[in-house]
Amino acid sequence: MPSEERPWFDVPLRVRYAETDAQGVVYHANYLVYMEVARSSITRERGFPYQAMEAAGINLVVVDARLRFRAPAGYDDPLVVRVRIRSLRGKVVAFAYRIEHAETGRLLVTGETTHLCVDGSFRPRAIPDEVVRALGC
Amino acid sequence: MPSEERPWFDVPLRVRYAETDAQGVVYHANYLVYMEVARSSITRERGFPYQAMEAAGINLVVVDARLRFRAPAGYDDPLVVRVRIRSLRGKVVAFAYRIEHAETGRLLVTGETTHLCVDGSFRPRAIPDEVVRALGC
Amino acid sequence: MPSEERPWFDVPLRVRYAETDAQGVVYHANYLVYMEVARSSITRERGFPYQAMEAAGINLVVVDARLRFRAPAGYDDPLVVRVRIRSLRGKVVAFAYRIEHAETGRLLVTGETTHLCVDGSFRPRAIPDEVVRALGC
Amino acid sequence: MPSEERPWFDVPLRVRYAETDAQGVVYHANYLVYMEVARSSITRERGFPYQAMEAAGINLVVVDARLRFRAPAGYDDPLVVRVRIRSLRGKVVAFAYRIEHAETGRLLVTGETTHLCVDGSFRPRAIPDEVVRALGC
Repeated sequence: MPSEERPWFDVPLRVRYAETDAQGVVYHANYLVYMEVARSSITRERGFPYQAMEAAGINLVVVDARLRFRAPAGYDDPLVVRVRIRSLRGKVVAFAYRIEHAETGRLLVTGETTHLCVDGSFRPRAIPDEVVRALGC
Repeated sequence: MPSEERPWFDVPLRVRYAETDAQGVVYHANYLVYMEVARSSITRERGFPYQAMEAAGINLVVVDARLRFRAPAGYDDPLVVRVRIRSLRGKVVAFAYRIEHAETGRLLVTGETTHLCVDGSFRPRAIPDEVVRALGC
Repeated sequence: MPSEERPWFDVPLRVRYAETDAQGVVYHANYLVYMEVARSSITRERGFPYQAMEAAGINLVVVDARLRFRAPAGYDDPLVVRVRIRSLRGKVVAFAYRIEHAETGRLLVTGETTHLCVDGSFRPRAIPDEVVRALGC
Repeated sequence: MPSEERPWFDVPLRVRYAETDAQGVVYHANYLVYMEVARSSITRERGFPYQAMEAAGINLVVVDARLRFRAPAGYDDPLVVRVRIRSLRGKVVAFAYRIEHAETGRLLVTGETTHLCVDGSFRPRAIPDEVVRALGC
């Protein structure tokens, strides 16, 4: 199945005051946090929370991140973070994101993050089958 | 009505990975953020979101905060932030908080914050009646 | 020696854009971070960095924090965080803080934090002598 | 002058406890904050602080960011954030970064950010000459 056809997983959240900056909009680094919130939701919803992965000696460390900021969000704006697997092969999984204003549908940020699977000693390892399943691939 | 009898307003949230620290638990300053999330929810739910207050030239600036950390929370823990008005008089409103683990009910953090009402030029002003009503007093 | 006479330890820092909020000033929770930066500097300067304490199974967990916000700081403002031991007895150490604008000397925030000494398993323990010395008591 | 030849501008900083996460290392989003600290230092050092730019109706909003995480940093690690202009043309300026461990020289993170110049109403505008000069081009 080509990655284009994988369904988006949608996670709603609201902008916190703490996440805004003196320009009156969300400070850009916080979108990486929103993306992490969405990744956490995927695995939790699918029955294999990231917490359990870590307990099983499986860590997904971020090795690459790209963000494109298209429009700003402000305090208390309702957002939806859409996430899906972009690719998953061997030791590496990549996610794609679209962050939109939940009411207007306006596209605010797009991006992708790439993660390397490592064991408890931070040595690269193949992504276990149960993680592949938890990620819905 | 004595403040003891004001009802708690409960706001659920989940600990984000970004909010943990190298001790493996929520970094203590983030509890102030959780408290702000709860305050935002009160006014939004009651039809006078803080965003609208600011647009109307009403700002509630934090002048005092006290926190007591009783037990740690970890990544992805479901929390409930309980907030209620502790006192409201003239230009000053104080909130009390209890942050609990949503499943075990364990009490994690208690605290209170005090806020001064100021206008768009940061001059103290009486808390307007519509804010008093929005805060449920 | 009464705590009043303990000398302040001064740590300079500058407000980051990420630390401001939509009110155009430092978001209040960040002052707890500034206080932690100052505590880190004390022990590092005195030859027993907190990192080494943790490696030796000594953790100082925050159990109480009080902050009084007196005046706002803005982006890029040069600050000085003044910290000193307020009390140290048994398993508990308390620090006092004064955060000032470095150029005008204006007092912005005062506060104190109280810390419980715990071992690697989070069991309370007496503060070891070498920590007492590192803290300059 | 090709961008390869523009000199790096080096900004030292130390990892704060607040910036670590439960993996015991710097939470990845914080590297965007470190990069912003470095950009702030460039313009401040060159006599046209970003604060003054904003006062003059000049804002540089982040439109794109790319990060490659090569090795982790831990609490209290001394880092150096190296930044230089990658390109500057019309309304757009791009910066490149190398974040290294200050003592070992180990390369931790590389990245780049692209910024659009906008006026006080967030309309794109050419980067003024005084900003070009402040950025050392």
